[in-house]
Amino acid sequence: MADRLGVLAGAGELPLRVIAAARAQARPVFVLAFEGIADPAVVEGSPHAWVRLGAAGEGMRILHENGVVDLVFAGAVRRPTLADLRPDWRAAKFYARVGLKALGDDGLLRAVIGELEGEGFRVLSVEAFLGDTLAPKGVLGAVAPDAAAESDIARGLEAARALGALDIGQAVVVQQGLVLGVEAIEGTDALLARCATLRREGPGGVLVKISKPRQERRADLPTIGAGTVAAAVAAGLRGIAIEAGSTLLLDRAAIVAAADAGKIFVIGIAAQ
Amino acid sequence: MADRLGVLAGAGELPLRVIAAARAQARPVFVLAFEGIADPAVVEGSPHAWVRLGAAGEGMRILHENGVVDLVFAGAVRRPTLADLRPDWRAAKFYARVGLKALGDDGLLRAVIGELEGEGFRVLSVEAFLGDTLAPKGVLGAVAPDAAAESDIARGLEAARALGALDIGQAVVVQQGLVLGVEAIEGTDALLARCATLRREGPGGVLVKISKPRQERRADLPTIGAGTVAAAVAAGLRGIAIEAGSTLLLDRAAIVAAADAGKIFVIGIAAQ
Repeated sequence: MADRLGVLAGAGELPLRVIAAARAQARPVFVLAFEGIADPAVVEGSPHAWVRLGAAGEGMRILHENGVVDLVFAGAVRRPTLADLRPDWRAAKFYARVGLKALGDDGLLRAVIGELEGEGFRVLSVEAFLGDTLAPKGVLGAVAPDAAAESDIARGLEAARALGALDIGQAVVVQQGLVLGVEAIEGTDALLARCATLRREGPGGVLVKISKPRQERRADLPTIGAGTVAAAVAAGLRGIAIEAGSTLLLDRAAIVAAADAGKIFVIGIAAQ
Repeated sequence: MADRLGVLAGAGELPLRVIAAARAQARPVFVLAFEGIADPAVVEGSPHAWVRLGAAGEGMRILHENGVVDLVFAGAVRRPTLADLRPDWRAAKFYARVGLKALGDDGLLRAVIGELEGEGFRVLSVEAFLGDTLAPKGVLGAVAPDAAAESDIARGLEAARALGALDIGQAVVVQQGLVLGVEAIEGTDALLARCATLRREGPGGVLVKISKPRQERRADLPTIGAGTVAAAVAAGLRGIAIEAGSTLLLDRAAIVAAADAGKIFVIGIAAQ
């Protein structure tokens, strides 16, 4: 049991993909799913336990008892309600030590990883299990950005870097030089839905989504899927620019098919 | 007619207040209202003309013909559709000279003011006509922020400064150290409505709204009204922090009454 992979399951479909990839490598998994955050479907067919996010002591005990050493974070863990965070003794000890450093999402995740390593766990990158899914550099589908779109990408990149430096969000939408919307806690899908109503006439905007400069790569890489592409098409965007080497594609073939069908571009760019 | 005040009427109720203040000073006005942006009510009872935002030549000709030298911008002019911006010959000349500098709202407004001054107009600050309405420093109503709210204000200020430096927006909402939402083109009311659904349990967040560091004070000062306060209360916020000396209060008595009724604070802070 010592080589069981512990999957710390957050929101979305990423945990299922990690579990499938581990199985494809004949690696047994143990799923620790966060209550109120993980999709109940992720634990089906796998040994698992549910814990509150604040129950750090209980979570670590369960992982140790199940012979887990290697851990992987899969799926976003946006900050939940205070009730979910209500700390057990172990989490309280952690909060007391981390204190105000844990303000943003990233700061909190980095601190959590340090804490887990102090307890003898090894925190792996989700990329290790989804090797083929990082965005490459360059155009992914049939459509490429024109000069106006390149200019919007540059403006979006500038804005996204500033947001990321402050640990606020990963994504912005820019149309004709104007920042239509900025992502904070609501997530990229809500940003795109809002921008559908904010768009100006004329050439559509672009979504720029990059990792935060101090982002903990083992915890929360930017992710896009075919649903992101469909939402961008619905919002009247002309394309999506993502950070090459640091964005998970779920999955690439579906993303390219959706982009080509919607006649928008998806491009991997150097962001930092 | 030489002392007619030209009111360039954008969105909202500010143009009406400026017109009323000018009348109280026995100053005749001429209202140049922007099509699709100004409220039709602002031209009632005043000599006026409607122009497309892109019809700069026509607008200047009308102002000159009506003996206007002094101008005041009243009400926000968010970037409209390309059709509204379709330049006449005078605007085209301006666009050609300004070029890519006109990317953000502020850059555009600064360039427009320079252009108007080159044509012999004098652009006054709206403050000159609404002297009593700038936010003072300190608590405005019966409620004051506690230490946790002060901490959220500091985090919001940091985020709002970064947004302002990039000419993206003026406002952010922060709850328990987490940036819930960031304003871009959608405006503060839409930001507050969104944050009502994004709020976490526990102590509510704060709205921080400040001017952009290079903001052209004669064109687009941050503004709050009793409606802003009511929206903040509805979103579960604990208070509003605005920039002392650079925020228009429309109007102060109504804002204080709404804040006290909703048991939230409104505080003027030093922001830059």
